Amino acid sequence: MAEDISRNTLAHAHPKEVRGLIRQGKWRQPTAGLCQGRVQANLVILPRDLADDFLVFTQRNPKPCPLLEVTGPGSIEPVQTAPGADLRQDLPKYRIYRHGQLEAEVTDLMAIWQDHLVSFLLGCSFTFEAAMLQAGVPVRHLEEGKNVPMYITNRPCLPAGIFQGPLVVSMRPVLPVLIPQAIQVTAKFPSAHGGPVQVGDPASLGIQGLSRPDFGDPVTIRASEVPVFWACGVTPQAVAMRAKPPLMITHAPGHMFITDLKDEDLAVY
Amino acid sequence: MAEDISRNTLAHAHPKEVRGLIRQGKWRQPTAGLCQGRVQANLVILPRDLADDFLVFTQRNPKPCPLLEVTGPGSIEPVQTAPGADLRQDLPKYRIYRHGQLEAEVTDLMAIWQDHLVSFLLGCSFTFEAAMLQAGVPVRHLEEGKNVPMYITNRPCLPAGIFQGPLVVSMRPVLPVLIPQAIQVTAKFPSAHGGPVQVGDPASLGIQGLSRPDFGDPVTIRASEVPVFWACGVTPQAVAMRAKPPLMITHAPGHMFITDLKDEDLAVY
Repeated sequence: MAEDISRNTLAHAHPKEVRGLIRQGKWRQPTAGLCQGRVQANLVILPRDLADDFLVFTQRNPKPCPLLEVTGPGSIEPVQTAPGADLRQDLPKYRIYRHGQLEAEVTDLMAIWQDHLVSFLLGCSFTFEAAMLQAGVPVRHLEEGKNVPMYITNRPCLPAGIFQGPLVVSMRPVLPVLIPQAIQVTAKFPSAHGGPVQVGDPASLGIQGLSRPDFGDPVTIRASEVPVFWACGVTPQAVAMRAKPPLMITHAPGHMFITDLKDEDLAVY
Repeated sequence: MAEDISRNTLAHAHPKEVRGLIRQGKWRQPTAGLCQGRVQANLVILPRDLADDFLVFTQRNPKPCPLLEVTGPGSIEPVQTAPGADLRQDLPKYRIYRHGQLEAEVTDLMAIWQDHLVSFLLGCSFTFEAAMLQAGVPVRHLEEGKNVPMYITNRPCLPAGIFQGPLVVSMRPVLPVLIPQAIQVTAKFPSAHGGPVQVGDPASLGIQGLSRPDFGDPVTIRASEVPVFWACGVTPQAVAMRAKPPLMITHAPGHMFITDLKDEDLAVY
């Protein structure tokens, strides 16, 4: 029974176990805090004829689009990051978009799956937020139980084929004394957006007001704290949506794919 | 006149200047030591119908295949890494392979260029060797004026489409006391092969004798020095050749493409 399983019980479970529970319909909630120390990933699924351009897009824009794995067409198994997993049913919730419009939220893709679909797994900020906390750098939206505030910037991504659009950033307020630490620990993880793209000057990114994020929730910025901006995984989804592909499938916000990779596997030093 | 230009003159020249000299036929030599501090790149050119699988191959094998840029089909200009450059004539020497066989070495691609060709620029070890030298870690093959010794390992790359084959590694002997430094400075550059794949145990890579490299030259290994192995950019070329594509074009060994990027642009911390 879903009610019997608590988030705490799964905090240190093996990813295989949690993916199994999800596949059996026993976990339908967001995945934050599950399988701590394991890499969670954003999912973008596109038809094959668009996938090649999207792959080039991720290569040209690695900060917002850190690619962990791309499957072969029709393959349901991410053999590099979670052997044995099934991308059609191992995430708690999916979103189906047609021509850029949200059509449905579903709990599996068994009915909709087709052999020409290509799946992209992209790194997510959970990895570097865990590293920030371990390094003693507070993460405000976690403290306040909110979604991270995200802002559409005036910086265009490098386009590829039909895919183009602005960089989206997430913001975390950091005390000046902790900024070097915040930068060092996040730069260790280029596969999870890496170091920040901007420190302290929202206007230079075309951001008008920090209290009105384009996605997520506003968070408290205390006196003397500086807003620090990281490239955000919403970027590729926003870009893909803008291209209005006939079919695009993503994870539902916060309902990520839990890989077998450990966070430290992504650390480059 | 080619004879008037010395390697020393160009050691600190701007990449645009040297690419211009190459384009005018005034420099036909290897590019090591030119434009010091700038990123040099391996070049692989493939027909469009094979390029998508090759792009996936680079994503699945980032240590041997650190992708700096992939051009759009037919595009001669690497807009990310060297705006204004012409990949058809800005390298001193190219190799043309047909069906996996070396057909010719040429000094430009003006006659052979076609609109369906896709160019891949891949990071090269010059970047991290400069960092090793700056950190006080000697690089033996440079001291001895040789090519780095390279070995075919027993480790398969992750395949993609028709592209598959073993990992090729380069070897540099390092004193045990300098190994941490050697690892730290090279790990800073994942776009130039990053940290080593193996330290001290050639047999575990299936390497029988260090004195008989598969490519390059053997180097002296002094008493108490330990062989350290890095993923090598010969890997993608060997893999592509094995796939016997109807047409493949690469740089001639040592005759690299000089980008505008600075080495430190590739440092992740």
